[in-house]
Formats: sequence, structure tokens, C-alpha cells
Amino acid sequence: GVANGQPKPRTPLRPGIYSPTMTFFDPETEDVDLASIRRHAVRLAEAGLVGLVTMGSNGEAVHLSREEKMAITRATREALDEAGYHDVPVIVGASEHGIRLTIELCKESAAAGGEYVLLVPPSYYRYAMDEAALYEYFTKVADESPLPVILYNYPGAVAGIDMDSDLIIKLAKHPNIVGTKFTCGNTGKLTRVALATNAVTTKGEGSGYMAFGGMADFTMQTAASGGSGIIAGGANVLPKTCVKVWNLWAEGKYDEAIALQKILSKGDWVLTKAAIPGTKSAIQSYYGYGGYPRRPLKRLSKEQVNAVAEGIKDVMEVEISL
Amino acid sequence: GVANGQPKPRTPLRPGIYSPTMTFFDPETEDVDLASIRRHAVRLAEAGLVGLVTMGSNGEAVHLSREEKMAITRATREALDEAGYHDVPVIVGASEHGIRLTIELCKESAAAGGEYVLLVPPSYYRYAMDEAALYEYFTKVADESPLPVILYNYPGAVAGIDMDSDLIIKLAKHPNIVGTKFTCGNTGKLTRVALATNAVTTKGEGSGYMAFGGMADFTMQTAASGGSGIIAGGANVLPKTCVKVWNLWAEGKYDEAIALQKILSKGDWVLTKAAIPGTKSAIQSYYGYGGYPRRPLKRLSKEQVNAVAEGIKDVMEVEISL
Amino acid sequence: GVANGQPKPRTPLRPGIYSPTMTFFDPETEDVDLASIRRHAVRLAEAGLVGLVTMGSNGEAVHLSREEKMAITRATREALDEAGYHDVPVIVGASEHGIRLTIELCKESAAAGGEYVLLVPPSYYRYAMDEAALYEYFTKVADESPLPVILYNYPGAVAGIDMDSDLIIKLAKHPNIVGTKFTCGNTGKLTRVALATNAVTTKGEGSGYMAFGGMADFTMQTAASGGSGIIAGGANVLPKTCVKVWNLWAEGKYDEAIALQKILSKGDWVLTKAAIPGTKSAIQSYYGYGGYPRRPLKRLSKEQVNAVAEGIKDVMEVEISL
Amino acid sequence: GVANGQPKPRTPLRPGIYSPTMTFFDPETEDVDLASIRRHAVRLAEAGLVGLVTMGSNGEAVHLSREEKMAITRATREALDEAGYHDVPVIVGASEHGIRLTIELCKESAAAGGEYVLLVPPSYYRYAMDEAALYEYFTKVADESPLPVILYNYPGAVAGIDMDSDLIIKLAKHPNIVGTKFTCGNTGKLTRVALATNAVTTKGEGSGYMAFGGMADFTMQTAASGGSGIIAGGANVLPKTCVKVWNLWAEGKYDEAIALQKILSKGDWVLTKAAIPGTKSAIQSYYGYGGYPRRPLKRLSKEQVNAVAEGIKDVMEVEISL
Repeated sequence: GVANGQPKPRTPLRPGIYSPTMTFFDPETEDVDLASIRRHAVRLAEAGLVGLVTMGSNGEAVHLSREEKMAITRATREALDEAGYHDVPVIVGASEHGIRLTIELCKESAAAGGEYVLLVPPSYYRYAMDEAALYEYFTKVADESPLPVILYNYPGAVAGIDMDSDLIIKLAKHPNIVGTKFTCGNTGKLTRVALATNAVTTKGEGSGYMAFGGMADFTMQTAASGGSGIIAGGANVLPKTCVKVWNLWAEGKYDEAIALQKILSKGDWVLTKAAIPGTKSAIQSYYGYGGYPRRPLKRLSKEQVNAVAEGIKDVMEVEISL
Repeated sequence: GVANGQPKPRTPLRPGIYSPTMTFFDPETEDVDLASIRRHAVRLAEAGLVGLVTMGSNGEAVHLSREEKMAITRATREALDEAGYHDVPVIVGASEHGIRLTIELCKESAAAGGEYVLLVPPSYYRYAMDEAALYEYFTKVADESPLPVILYNYPGAVAGIDMDSDLIIKLAKHPNIVGTKFTCGNTGKLTRVALATNAVTTKGEGSGYMAFGGMADFTMQTAASGGSGIIAGGANVLPKTCVKVWNLWAEGKYDEAIALQKILSKGDWVLTKAAIPGTKSAIQSYYGYGGYPRRPLKRLSKEQVNAVAEGIKDVMEVEISL
Repeated sequence: GVANGQPKPRTPLRPGIYSPTMTFFDPETEDVDLASIRRHAVRLAEAGLVGLVTMGSNGEAVHLSREEKMAITRATREALDEAGYHDVPVIVGASEHGIRLTIELCKESAAAGGEYVLLVPPSYYRYAMDEAALYEYFTKVADESPLPVILYNYPGAVAGIDMDSDLIIKLAKHPNIVGTKFTCGNTGKLTRVALATNAVTTKGEGSGYMAFGGMADFTMQTAASGGSGIIAGGANVLPKTCVKVWNLWAEGKYDEAIALQKILSKGDWVLTKAAIPGTKSAIQSYYGYGGYPRRPLKRLSKEQVNAVAEGIKDVMEVEISL
Repeated sequence: GVANGQPKPRTPLRPGIYSPTMTFFDPETEDVDLASIRRHAVRLAEAGLVGLVTMGSNGEAVHLSREEKMAITRATREALDEAGYHDVPVIVGASEHGIRLTIELCKESAAAGGEYVLLVPPSYYRYAMDEAALYEYFTKVADESPLPVILYNYPGAVAGIDMDSDLIIKLAKHPNIVGTKFTCGNTGKLTRVALATNAVTTKGEGSGYMAFGGMADFTMQTAASGGSGIIAGGANVLPKTCVKVWNLWAEGKYDEAIALQKILSKGDWVLTKAAIPGTKSAIQSYYGYGGYPRRPLKRLSKEQVNAVAEGIKDVMEVEISL
């Protein structure tokens, strides 16, 4: 962005909790519901999140047109700015299966107000995606992307591709690759990458590299492993609890962080198992908006809605108390 | 299309050989090379193919922008028309991970001159894609698509989703689902589906349902199984040989078809193993155009180029003689 | 075996239909029921099968102790001999994850009356099983095994390992590797291997190499592809129909073979989908013995039993008429 | 065991570090090398391990005959007793694909001196192993096994079967199921299971249930998650470092544990990537015995041997200093 002729400097990534935001739709028409998207972004910032990710798996990026994607990122940025959260950057999921298209999407993401991109490996031509191809993909994209790149290691979404610490550390040498999100749950790998990259931790800024845990399920373990933060689907529902776990650890209150993580892991699992329909249902039950995913993702039955609400009751009591 | 105020009737799908056409690029810039795409389409029609598929896996659909996709389909249709091949329909790969986006792409494909669409199951949310979700996806898309739908069963490209004959037969009852492409190679499944749908065969029109083999590798076996045709990547290189195998069977010259299939299976395997880079390389070696895929798909080394050319030498002698 | 001081020459593998025999158990105790096993072997030989496979996947080899395995193979051999079927060889599944253990099991299989072994690739250390390891495994076993080796390509049972035609053809050069069973269903691959090895076909003995289809589902297609026979689980229930399809093709009655294959593919699918419990249930329903698999494989409900019986009714009418 | 007419009470499982011991072979004959096995067991107990696992994946159980398996377990038990480590129990890997065979192996394991068994889910009939089948398998085995059962969640070895916390917690209610080993690396899942079962931790005995991390790679994270110990392949090479990390945490020296875990995760990765051949090579390089796995597992080249030795140099300096 530019103000008064001066480009706005890139908002730094701070240690802490981030959330891949849900995309909300009109329950009848399935049109994008920008009002709920804005409201949600502000609610999460108010709860203490230090960054938001649009167009993640939770955001149903694969269900959205190019125009919708950009509108959502723009609305998220604007809502944060209007509410005074200029220091909360928007990271944009911008993955495509080829280098050229990904670069284009990175540029569009920048134009829409994104400040970083989050990229899974290409996987359509799974047989061809060996280490050399992945290395070329990420470095060539990073060469041209106006936004710094965060690697997204999520085997379940990319036909099982699981980048190991050697490859991630090699990629991290690129000046425009600035972090990794570990949705694989492998805390040993996260430990090695954080160590090798001198990542941001609760204790200091290090090199600035961000090693993100990818689920609320292991927030404390990520902090303990020398990680930089969490990008957690569960933080759509439980942002304050995630923040509290993180902050307790940062303050050296390890045993308290550990105790709260147990409650968080138990509740987050209910959301993980119920996936996108369940996370939206939980938001609907406790915050009054949420709705449904686009089809063919399913809508929960009344029994399932109640089971999700009941399953997170304990952790929601904590959440509301914070 | 409309001519003289009359909508052009949909071109019927005839039994025989179809090809998912390669998408050609400038070797320097990786821009779409429409001239080669046109030339290629005409070459294949001249060789006797009865339909072309744009935006298939071989066509690198995942490497193309929406605008490029439409330009390629349009150019293919126009090139066929200009060369007089009005009876060769264009089938368009139009898969997206959600119902709404897929329907949009079906409509755009129609506007660009496509007459049918070919759709893989959505797979990004792999865990959610049970039979009920797949059934909803395909039937809801078929309800709204202006173009009849051909199911594309290709487990290797969609995180292992392998639709069985029960599901395919159930989907085939939808009036706007008119065929299946079996890239799984399962000829028993193809036999059952062809039987249950009373598919087009070399012997008769049946119900009009099309049961396509998905590779040149089992062209004769598809004909023998009561199939309706082949949509074969190998037909980009070996169209006449594929046509000849099919026609020999159709003429009741079973032993000759079997003998020629052996040569075809041997040569086609070289192309399958070398994948998109190798198929383009083979076209370059024998037809003087072809080039490279978009990155991060690799370019063959000189040794690999020569190995592919050598590996298909025998079948190319047949091809050239036809 | 040795008779009158002369070793009995190995029974040759003839083209035609083979079956991986079920292993029957007492429904109460789950003890091996040798009486039913003997009865079954003779029933299949009477129906025209030209070889039996003990200790296949259908035979629940992984549920059997070493002693049970040998008792079953021995009983099968004896039952065939007593009924006069000296020319029906027993092939024994003898797979282990290491070379040394596999060789031991090959020797025990020979001692129990087996004349050939059928071996899947080792897969427990999946990450280590590259082509070099598979090549070493099969050739080292073949070097030492007293019984000739038939390769068993069945990705679904070995963590997805799918040997391609190049590897199989390379392995086929070993003098003690004499065949391949293709349960992958890939008839193009079978065509290439049969061609390269000059395999036994319905038309001639060739080199003696056996290229077996792995399911009744593509019996005719295997014959058409230049294959040597079928090792079909479905032949436990439908032996005469399988034999008839094969013989029709061998007699040049292609269209009749094709027509009967359709009925066979439809019925065999019911058995495939119901798997081991369903195949046993079908035998029980139509032949009066069969019982259940060992646990934790499940037992069908009455509704499922009836559905299987009903599902194969058409093909069983053919079977009984033959 | 029985002494003076009194059965020896079962040795309790203590919190701390366990190792799945390697099985050593003569480099020429590949015969089992019991002398090295005994020496190794004592070396590990001296280093502070509180239990050993024979017949794990690292122990090449799938490469061993029934007789060899029992001889190794017996030798391990005897070597520990002779060296005075009566309080170090032997856990035996006793997995088979059926209930009946597994129970037999549990009984044999007891006879050989094992005190607990470690069991992966059956996976050969992968399609049939739904939650109901897994529940039946583990509970029926636990009903009859003379040795208490530890569940082994290791998706990479069992065709991807990944038991979730709901199933594990349900199974943990069986009185003879006393622990779980998490090789999946999922610390959130471990947290939930440890919480629900009131597992042994560094702070107290709880219910006695053992929640084991499955790799040295996340030793500290396991302790932090309320886990009970680690069963770590890396402890074959780095036992003292693992013990030190665990003890530092138990003593409340969290920051020191975290710092040492970083060194451990870095070194353990070298062993994990080099797998069984590399772990044996590392033992050979630093302890003077080790040798090679049974074939078809490979032997490292000299370059690879040196790379492994070099890769763990830093952590070995720590190890030797302890």
C-alpha cells in the first residue's frame, strides 16, 4: 500500500497465534457473506490474534472464484484497518499447481492487501513432484513473488507429499521464504527447522524466520519446540484460549501452559474431527453466525450440531472467561 | 452455437479414438502457443480421431489461467471447423473442487465451443468425499451444466478416489451424465458399466452412453469389453495406430487387432513412463513441434529425448505407414 | 517327490483357470477344517481348473501358523492325487518380508507337496523397497528356492507397491522366475510382459512363461491380451464359468467368450465387493460348506448372506448348467 | 516366571526411556548374533533405560523365524538378569494379522521371558480393518493374552492405519490394555490419551497407563504433553542423551531439557533418515559392533557410513560426556 507517496512498510510477523479464517456464505444462495467475514476478522483480532490467513484450507479457497478470493482478502484487510488492527497482517493462501499461475496469484494477493503468501507443494502431477521439482517450484515462485513465502507442509491435502527438514531448511535459505507451517504435527521436524533457521520464539526474534505449528492441538508443544506461533483452525472458535496457552509459555509459566493445553487439545479435537462443517457449526452455536460450507461439503444434522456444541463446552467455558 | 437463428445441434459422440490434447507453449516465455495447438488439433482429426479433449491432465489444465483455458478450447474448435471437421466435438476438462465453481466452468466451456465436459471427483477435502458427497457433486453439477457430463475415474490424480461400478452405474441414470472415462485400467469395471448402461460399442449405438478406456495401452481390450472408445494420451503421438486397432476390432478382425495392440502397448508405455515431458518430446522428435511443459514439470535431457524417440521407433514405423 | 527312486518330474503349468483356494475353518473353534479343504480342492479340479494356489490372500495365509500352512498344502495335494488329478499342480503362497525367511518357506512348501511358489514383494519396510531392493529380493529368493517363482503384483496388499513391466520383464530373465500374476488389473502391462516373455497363450506354449490375470473379472481380456491363464478368487465359486470363458476364447469363439464374460464380470464383482466373508458365504449358500474367515475378519449378517446369494444368481444358473 | 514356587510379580513399567532393540546378525551368514544382542541389552540398561522392546520394527521381527524371535527375547531377558537389571522389563512385539495367531505369539512371548506385548493393528486385509474390526482385534487379543498389551500406532508400517484418540481411549478401558506407543508423532493425540487415561507422567503414577512417544525426536515434547516415556529407536545409539532429556524435564529443568532436545532432534534425524542400516552403522562406528540388516534391506556404502557418523558427531559428544 501507499500513503502520502510513501509505501507502507510490510507489517512484521510477530510470535503468537494466527488463524486460517473461515469463509462465510449465505445459507440459501451460497453467495459470499462479506459482512460475516469482516465481523469474524475483527472478532479474532480483538481476541488477540496477531495475524490472519485467508484462502487456507479452512477458508475453502478451492470453492472460490478468483474474484471472490480477492474480495475476501480485501474485505479482511479493510475490516482490520477500520477496527484499528493495522499491525495484524493478512497472509493469503495462493497455491496453484504451476509456477507461473502461482506467481500471478501472489501478485493478485498483494494487490488485495495480503502481505505474505502461504503455499502448499503442487501435487496434481504427484509422480513428478520429487525434491528437485519442489525446490524449483518454491524458489522460482519466491524469486518473483512480491509477497514473502511461507511454506505449508500439509501431507493430507497434497496426496501425501511430506517435506522433510532437510528440504525445508534448504528452502529457508531463500531470502523471500520466511517461514513454514507444520500441519504434519511433527514437532521433531519443527524443532530442527526452528533451530537451523534461528526462528522467532517466545524468547526472541532470532533471524525472523517463522516456524508455525499448524493446529491448536499442539500449541504448547510448538512453543516448547522453539516454534514461532500457531496457525490454527481451532482459533476460529477458541482464539483466546490459544493466545492464553501461548502467553503462559512466553511468560515462563510452563506448568500452567501445559495444564491449559490439555483442555485445548481435548476441545480442538472435536473441531478437527467435525472439520469445516463442524467448525462453522460451533461458531454458529456460540457466536451467532457461521452457516455452512459450500457443497459438496455436507451440513451437520441437528444431532451433530448439538454434539459439537457439547463436545467443546468445557473449553468454551474457559474461552468465555478470558 | 447458433447459425441462421437455429442452434446447432450437439455433435454426437461416435465410437472410436479421442485424445486429450497437449497444450503447447513457447519454449522461452512459456506463453500459450495457439498456432501449434491449432495445427495439432487438425493433425489429429486428419488421422481419424472422432473427438478431442481440451483441459485434460495431459493438457496441463492446472497450469492454465481461466482465460488461457477458454482461448485454447476456442482455438481448438475453430481450427477443427476451419479444416472442415465439424463432426469432431471438443470435450472440455472442467473440474473444480466445489459444485458452484464447476458449474461456472461448464458454462464457460460451453461458451468457448465445448460440447461435453469431463470431470474428476473433487479431492482436496479427501476425507469428506464419501459416496454420498460424490453422488451429490456429480448430480448437482449435471443438473445445471449446459454440457453433458462424462465422469473421469482417475485415482492417481485425485488422492486415490476410485469410483466403483455400483456408483458409476447409479450416476449414469442421470440424463445429463453420458459417459465415463476409465483411466483406472479396470476392464472388468468397464465391462459391467458398459453392460448396465447399454453403452455404444463397435457393434451398435445402444443407449448412447460412452464407456471410454483411458489409455492407448488397452484399446483392443476396451473394444473387447464392450467399450465405446478410448480417450488416450498416446493418441497425441500415435493416432493412426490407435484408430487402426479400433477399426480392426470393429471390422471383426480380432486377431489383427490383438497383434497390433501388442506393438501399441509396447510403444505407449514409453510415453506413459516419460509422461507429459516425454509425450511432448516425442511429438517434437517426429512431428517438428511439441516443446516443453510449464514448470515445475521438467524438461528431458538429450539422452532422455533420444531414449523416448528410440523407444517408440517400432510403433512409429507402423504409424507412418498408415 | 520321489517314487521308485525316481524324482517325479515337475507338473507343468498349463494355460487355463487356477484358483487361490479358500481355507475353511470350524465355525465354532476356528480350527482348520481339512475335510472341507480336501472336498473343495477336488470340486475345483472336477470343474476343470488346471492348478490350485494354497496360501494366497484368499486362503488367509496371514491367519495361519506355519504348521497349519503346511498341513493345508499337503492335504490339498493328497486330495488331488487321491482323486486322480496328478496333473493339477499346487502353487503355494510363500511370501515373507526377508530373503532368508522366504527361502525357508519355499523349502517347506516344496516338502509339503507344492510345485511352485507365488510371492508378493516385501512391504513392511515400505520406504526401503525401491527397484533395486525388489530385484535383489526376487532374484536371491529364486536362486535358492527349490520351487520356481511366480511374481504376484498386488498393490492393494503391499502398501501400494506396483511393479511395472520393465521390472517384471527384467526379473523374468531369471531361469527360476516363471510367471507373474497381475492382480493390478492392468491389461496393458500384462500384454507387454506376455509379449516380451513369449508367454504361454491359448494358441501355444511359447517360452513357458505364465502371464496370469489375477481376477475372474477380466478373464476374456487376459486371454485377448496374450495371457496364459487366470488365478481367480471367483473361481472358488464359479470355476466352470471361468473355464468356459477361457475355452471359448481358445476355440476362437471370441464373441461367445465376450458375451459370457459380461455375465461373469457382473457376478464376480459381487464376490469381490463382499471379499473373503462373502466368497465363503456364497460357497455355503450354493455348495453347502464354506463357513467364516478367522477373526477379526467379519461374518456376514443374514441380510448380507442373502444379498450375495441373490447377486450371483444369474451367473450361478450358468455355472450349474455347465 | 516362578522362583521357589512363587510366581515372580510382573515388573512394573516405569516412566522413562525404552528402546526397541536392534537384532544383530553375523555379517557373513546373517545368522543371529546372540552375543552382540546380549551385550547391547546390557549396554542400554547401564545407560539408564527402564525397559527394552524386542521384536519391534527396528528389531527386524519380520525377518526372523519364530524360533529366532524367542531365542532373542530369551537372551535379552537373561542378559539383563545376569547383569542385575531385574527391574528392566522386556516388551515383545507380537503382532500377527489375525486374533488367534497373535494370542499364540503372546503366549510364546511370555514363555520366552517377555512381560508385555506391543501390537500394531492388522493391515493385510486393509479394506476390512475399520474401527469395529480393530476394536475386536485388540480386545479379543487382550482377553486371552497372558501379557498386558501396549497398542502401537505406527501408520507408516500398517498401510496408513492411524488410530485416533477416541478409539485408543475406548480400547484403554480394557483392563489388559496398558499403554500406547505413538510413532505417529501426534503430540495432541498423545495429550488427549494421557489426559483421558490419567497416564503415568514425570510427576506421578496416575492410573499406571503408559503413553509413550515413539521416537527420540520428540522426547521433551512427550514429557511436556503428559506422556509416560519414549520407546525410541534412537536410544539404541543415544540412550544417555534421551535419558538426560527426560530426567531434566522430570526435575523441572524445562529450559535445559528443551536445549538438549534440540541437539537430540538434530542427531536423531540422521538415524531416522538412514533407518535400520544407518542405525546399525552408527552403532558399529561408535561402539564397535552393529553390522548389517538382513537382506533385502541394504548395506550402506563407505560414504554413507561416514556421513552417518559425521551427522551424529555433535550429539555423540554429548552422549559420551554423560
